[in-house]
Amino acid sequence: MPTRLSNYFLRTLREDPADAEVASHRLLVRAGYIRRQAPGVFAWLPIGLRVKARIEEVIRQEMTAAGAHEVHFPALLPREPYEVTNRWTEYGEGLFRLQDRKGGDYLLAPTHEEVFTLMVKDLYSSYKDLPLTIYQIQDKYRDEARPRAGLLRGREFTMKDAYSFDVSDAGLDASYQAQRDAYERIFTRLGLDYVIVQADAGAMGGSKSEEFLHPSPVGEDTFVRSAGGYAANVEAYTTIPPEPVPFDGLPAPLVLDSPNTPTIATLVDLANAEYPRPDGRPWTAADTLKNVVLALTHLDGTRELVVVGLPGDRDVEMKRVEVAFAPAEVEAATEADFAGRPGLVKGYIGPWSPDGAVLGEESVTGIRFLVDPRVVDGTEWITGANLDEKHVFGLVAGRDFVADGIVEAADVRAGDPAPDGSGPVELARGVEIGHVFQLGRKYADALGLKVLDENGKLATVTMGSYGIGVTRILAIIAEGHHDDKGLVWPAAVAPFDVHVLATGKDDAVFAVGESISAALEAAGLDVLYDDRPKLSPGVKFADAELIGVPKIVIAGRGIAEGVVEVWDRASGDRTTVPIDGVAAALGR
Amino acid sequence: MPTRLSNYFLRTLREDPADAEVASHRLLVRAGYIRRQAPGVFAWLPIGLRVKARIEEVIRQEMTAAGAHEVHFPALLPREPYEVTNRWTEYGEGLFRLQDRKGGDYLLAPTHEEVFTLMVKDLYSSYKDLPLTIYQIQDKYRDEARPRAGLLRGREFTMKDAYSFDVSDAGLDASYQAQRDAYERIFTRLGLDYVIVQADAGAMGGSKSEEFLHPSPVGEDTFVRSAGGYAANVEAYTTIPPEPVPFDGLPAPLVLDSPNTPTIATLVDLANAEYPRPDGRPWTAADTLKNVVLALTHLDGTRELVVVGLPGDRDVEMKRVEVAFAPAEVEAATEADFAGRPGLVKGYIGPWSPDGAVLGEESVTGIRFLVDPRVVDGTEWITGANLDEKHVFGLVAGRDFVADGIVEAADVRAGDPAPDGSGPVELARGVEIGHVFQLGRKYADALGLKVLDENGKLATVTMGSYGIGVTRILAIIAEGHHDDKGLVWPAAVAPFDVHVLATGKDDAVFAVGESISAALEAAGLDVLYDDRPKLSPGVKFADAELIGVPKIVIAGRGIAEGVVEVWDRASGDRTTVPIDGVAAALGR
Repeated sequence: MPTRLSNYFLRTLREDPADAEVASHRLLVRAGYIRRQAPGVFAWLPIGLRVKARIEEVIRQEMTAAGAHEVHFPALLPREPYEVTNRWTEYGEGLFRLQDRKGGDYLLAPTHEEVFTLMVKDLYSSYKDLPLTIYQIQDKYRDEARPRAGLLRGREFTMKDAYSFDVSDAGLDASYQAQRDAYERIFTRLGLDYVIVQADAGAMGGSKSEEFLHPSPVGEDTFVRSAGGYAANVEAYTTIPPEPVPFDGLPAPLVLDSPNTPTIATLVDLANAEYPRPDGRPWTAADTLKNVVLALTHLDGTRELVVVGLPGDRDVEMKRVEVAFAPAEVEAATEADFAGRPGLVKGYIGPWSPDGAVLGEESVTGIRFLVDPRVVDGTEWITGANLDEKHVFGLVAGRDFVADGIVEAADVRAGDPAPDGSGPVELARGVEIGHVFQLGRKYADALGLKVLDENGKLATVTMGSYGIGVTRILAIIAEGHHDDKGLVWPAAVAPFDVHVLATGKDDAVFAVGESISAALEAAGLDVLYDDRPKLSPGVKFADAELIGVPKIVIAGRGIAEGVVEVWDRASGDRTTVPIDGVAAALGR
Repeated sequence: MPTRLSNYFLRTLREDPADAEVASHRLLVRAGYIRRQAPGVFAWLPIGLRVKARIEEVIRQEMTAAGAHEVHFPALLPREPYEVTNRWTEYGEGLFRLQDRKGGDYLLAPTHEEVFTLMVKDLYSSYKDLPLTIYQIQDKYRDEARPRAGLLRGREFTMKDAYSFDVSDAGLDASYQAQRDAYERIFTRLGLDYVIVQADAGAMGGSKSEEFLHPSPVGEDTFVRSAGGYAANVEAYTTIPPEPVPFDGLPAPLVLDSPNTPTIATLVDLANAEYPRPDGRPWTAADTLKNVVLALTHLDGTRELVVVGLPGDRDVEMKRVEVAFAPAEVEAATEADFAGRPGLVKGYIGPWSPDGAVLGEESVTGIRFLVDPRVVDGTEWITGANLDEKHVFGLVAGRDFVADGIVEAADVRAGDPAPDGSGPVELARGVEIGHVFQLGRKYADALGLKVLDENGKLATVTMGSYGIGVTRILAIIAEGHHDDKGLVWPAAVAPFDVHVLATGKDDAVFAVGESISAALEAAGLDVLYDDRPKLSPGVKFADAELIGVPKIVIAGRGIAEGVVEVWDRASGDRTTVPIDGVAAALGR
């Protein structure tokens, strides 16, 4: 039976919802697919649920083809396993926590590594049981600080999460590859462009991680790629360090007056005006060493100041810093932080002063000093002298100061070299639609998942975890398939195959609409039939364009001549076909 | 492709789980269908998920046939709508409550009346939009005090909940009937015995309510039924009151000594020994009026003592009392309650004393006194005289005391008359598998759901709500379909149609098992193929019996003669059939 709009629970809206930031959100609400219930929490109306079910079916088919078995775990989970892996704490405010009537601690699971690990531990005991990949399609919860853009960043959202279990590293590679291949098939079938980028494993732990990013201006993720095939999330980009240079014979550092130089630009101007290079080459921002003071909050609650030194023509990029210092939380140092550190002269901070080392190894402050990979031994810098209104010129890395380590904190820019030598990178924005992780043995170690290996010895299992944001994907497809009139669903995920409109007041058009709808359903197509009486053709056309079913059949005045129109939503082409030729015109 | 046991995520257990109280729980865990994650919270393993999906599919089909559209609402909902209807408070400790990072109050929804009501209010405005029935199959949360019996009473469980919306009472009747009819079809298709009983609408509010109970010794619900067709939950059973009798000319009440009569039985013994009836008929417990002091806690937190008077041969039944006083919570009065009420002489409480009325209308205590329907005017009672070690004989209702009202607090017993005159009732135990409510206008009133009626006036919508416990049903089917070897699934919900076993070590049996499995899949059957090497036939037989697929095909030694065995799990019958005749033997 066709679905009749006259009694379908669907109402289109003429106005955009006030809170909609992006097209997918605006159109999915206006066309009656979803409705907001709370920030980042949505209800699915019947037509929205159909699209979601079709996406889930594609995912299920490809998971089955990849040899994964479907399970279903609770959303409500006890604290204990997440305590063991420390994620109860690490997840911070992003975790929804609650207590039951007996005061027991529970969470709404953001992902399920812990309980999948424990389930396999419970049921399996031998290498012969492995490899295993199991998955679920299930509602997840994350208390996002800023839920945004409708389904793109929700607090309750549907996710496909799969977990693989292997004895050997080679086994994990194979399981990882099988999921990665399945993801490529899924996104291709769903008509979703994607770029696979290297990613930082971040709080998930583990060794290798790749993200599937859908390039999109509404994306929150920035990634870099080279024409030669390199692609990475900015968090995962690594800088090629220059070769160290010998510093024998370089002159001693020189402390010079530098009043009124609050910025790198004013410092460079002063340097060129007052202290020009002997060889005439102008000083640039890249000749200065910028020292940024950050405050880390560690998991145990302790606060640590660290200083990051980087070339003055670069800025600290917080996303990269956050990954570099995870699981600690990072923020800019506050006045209070400085107040407790009289050894740091604000505005003139540097690793060195005429009295000795201020930062880094064997320094008087003991503050950790981490530098950008470009700050290699032998490089010379203009930087703060830790004296009011004074900078030091010709400060040499490896001679005058020794950093405590390297940190990838600087921003990445178009034109920077790809670390694999494949040429300069460009920057683009994308939305994460899938993420594959080689977790390794972190979770199995923490939770004691071991099996007997071929030699009868206990071996810790190695794991992978693989996620696809189902509801996010739906929004991304809508984002990529719409025009100014409404949604334009690709056939693979459309809620219906055909939208039949009966236009006009004549009973005959409704009779024809009815018979065409029945015939198309009989031919195996899913039909939405607009049988609403007393609506103008214009209203029905506008609704059909907004709803976005790929093919629209219009039964109107033409029926007197035995014809109807077949309208392709994507191209806008309209073709006149005989009433009994509609199924054929739609390829049936 | 058949599902191969060699790499299926399924492990059977030889031992019963320690916490299993009922067969369904024991067998579903042992056969690898479910695993406990927390009290009342379960994970679904692949084979369990298949059964659940089949049940859901039956429900979906019948909901569609009943004209209902599927939607999906969040489990995580904001407090506000539940505050408006007072359920945020009324649900008490049964509601999982939590806060988000901004301190906003949320709940995990136990049912969704509020947000369905608001959604219809949001989208609909006219009587022409109605009737409407929408439903979801979704995970619900209730913080049960005593989660028990596996899936029978869980804290996270899957439910089909439907909601109907009508303008008129007749419309509600029709929508209610359509759901009720669908429930009958669903339970019949699932092979579930059921009794439809009158129920109390309880905390849901509303006017009419019926429960679908599956008669079962493991049920928590007691219901009564008569041979003449009456059936009701004990909470909903109503007592037929006797006719009042004239009390003109009855003697005045007589206060008599009654030491050492702590129980009704001792009181009756003393009465017969010391104060026999003049006509020689013995006193019985039914001649005494038992006065039970209860403490109500109202929603606003105030505590009220009430006294319930009932014939001494009856006990107060807490389930009936709870319904009678809902939404107040009820418990037995405590010592502290008595301490504050010196007017009540414990052990000798009654509505009357020689000094005047103690309970009921115009009493000195002002304590509400509610009586069993059998305590009609003119009935004579032996009851406490509110004096230490004294009872009063011949106390006449309506003359010596006047109750404040009637309460259905007494227990119901086999042989009690059905209220509709259809004969004596018997008692049985059952599990609630479905519940249909005529909510009426309670929710629409509270949340302002009105539409324009035919006359252009605003009319409040009338609603119904209809629930089926999906995961509970699965357990009930298992409970009713098992033997001492394991599960015995009815075909309609079985995880697979056929379980093929290759027994023995000969490669040939595996080749035959493989080809039979492939042939049966090609014939449209879902096949579980036990291709595990190196297991004895006995282990495979035991697993097959435990797992409970309806038909089992055994490829063993017989293949040398070109035959296999087809084993009917339910009857135990084994038939020898030619290898190429298996599909035909299974009706394909």
